Amino acid sequence: MRVGVLGTGIVGKTLAAALVGRGHHVMLGTRDVRRKMEEKAEEGSVSYRRWASTNKKVRLGTFAEAAAHGELLMNATAGHASVEVLSKIRPADLRDKILIDIANALGEWGEGPMELFVANTDSLAERIQRAQPGVRVVKALNTVTAHIMVNPKGLAGGDHDLFVAGNDPDARERVVRFLREEFGWKTVIDLGDLTAARGLEMLIMLWLKLWGVFGTADFNYKIVR
Amino acid sequence: MRVGVLGTGIVGKTLAAALVGRGHHVMLGTRDVRRKMEEKAEEGSVSYRRWASTNKKVRLGTFAEAAAHGELLMNATAGHASVEVLSKIRPADLRDKILIDIANALGEWGEGPMELFVANTDSLAERIQRAQPGVRVVKALNTVTAHIMVNPKGLAGGDHDLFVAGNDPDARERVVRFLREEFGWKTVIDLGDLTAARGLEMLIMLWLKLWGVFGTADFNYKIVR
Repeated sequence: MRVGVLGTGIVGKTLAAALVGRGHHVMLGTRDVRRKMEEKAEEGSVSYRRWASTNKKVRLGTFAEAAAHGELLMNATAGHASVEVLSKIRPADLRDKILIDIANALGEWGEGPMELFVANTDSLAERIQRAQPGVRVVKALNTVTAHIMVNPKGLAGGDHDLFVAGNDPDARERVVRFLREEFGWKTVIDLGDLTAARGLEMLIMLWLKLWGVFGTADFNYKIVR
Repeated sequence: MRVGVLGTGIVGKTLAAALVGRGHHVMLGTRDVRRKMEEKAEEGSVSYRRWASTNKKVRLGTFAEAAAHGELLMNATAGHASVEVLSKIRPADLRDKILIDIANALGEWGEGPMELFVANTDSLAERIQRAQPGVRVVKALNTVTAHIMVNPKGLAGGDHDLFVAGNDPDARERVVRFLREEFGWKTVIDLGDLTAARGLEMLIMLWLKLWGVFGTADFNYKIVR
């Protein structure tokens, strides 16, 4: 399948590497391809150029090109930039496609105390859906750290849960199947329409506290029944 | 131990019954004792008078009397009323006591779409703590339905988690011990100061969706590591 992944952070790169490993054709989308290829490494990380040299099957394009490329789209941009990034894409390249929205409604890191820029009565996923009514937004994967997204079995044998929410039942069903078949998720709970993205996005506030207490992002939720 | 439980809803009554069963001396606090004793049963429930006739060891008093009675206090009032209820209590009857805050920041049922009246940058628990600086607020138990609060082993043998948050480390530690010893909670995760109540209170939005999907409140979260 052709997949367009918007965003070249750790989430985008982790998804892209996993998907090409499964035989998919992936294009990562970024704001400025040349700048991305010339970008210096951030502390504790490698430059995009260096990462790309060991992930040769992953193509790099603009956000618009990655969206045009993908039959399936994934939003792995920073939440505060997501709506603006999607506005750069031609509506025809979004129409009827599924967009798995992984972003969280956090501002830029280090800008004062942690807070969501949308919560409670609305969500980032709903904002994206309103801004791009032609795409089928499915909220998923925003509740776990990147390497667990693509390898749930690496944590406790995969005995923990994921959630989906979106207004199109067919899109939710396809995403559930995709997550099971491509990444090995055992339990994906369908929460119904996109208002459920509010609860899923607000989870990040508990997640950040747990991260602080455990000193690691290697954890996930399981709903015990 | 003498425990004052504020609120005579299903949560307050469930806690009271469990605690007297463990040999504690419990007073439930209500707005108007006479009115509560004369109240008719709500649909699908029994009247307070009838409940009290089978729970004779549970005393009933005003909010102020229940607070004066308790060495340990529990807030089981409706979230939208909690700050006002606590304002009826003499500061001397709160000073240095632990108040386990179980309330969620929900408005009255049936009043339009579900939303929290405080979220994200503040929480009900923090509002209570600011309004009553003498009491030691510990957020706990608001993430599960009433009968699981007092009998976690009744769900999957108790293999699921609870959380505490509060500004006083000694109070958090005492509440963790209390929850383990009195109700049998196996894992209680200490999230640190009361800002963590934001994430715990925002969990209700996911909880309500899960409740809708499962058709039962008999579930809880487990943090898988």
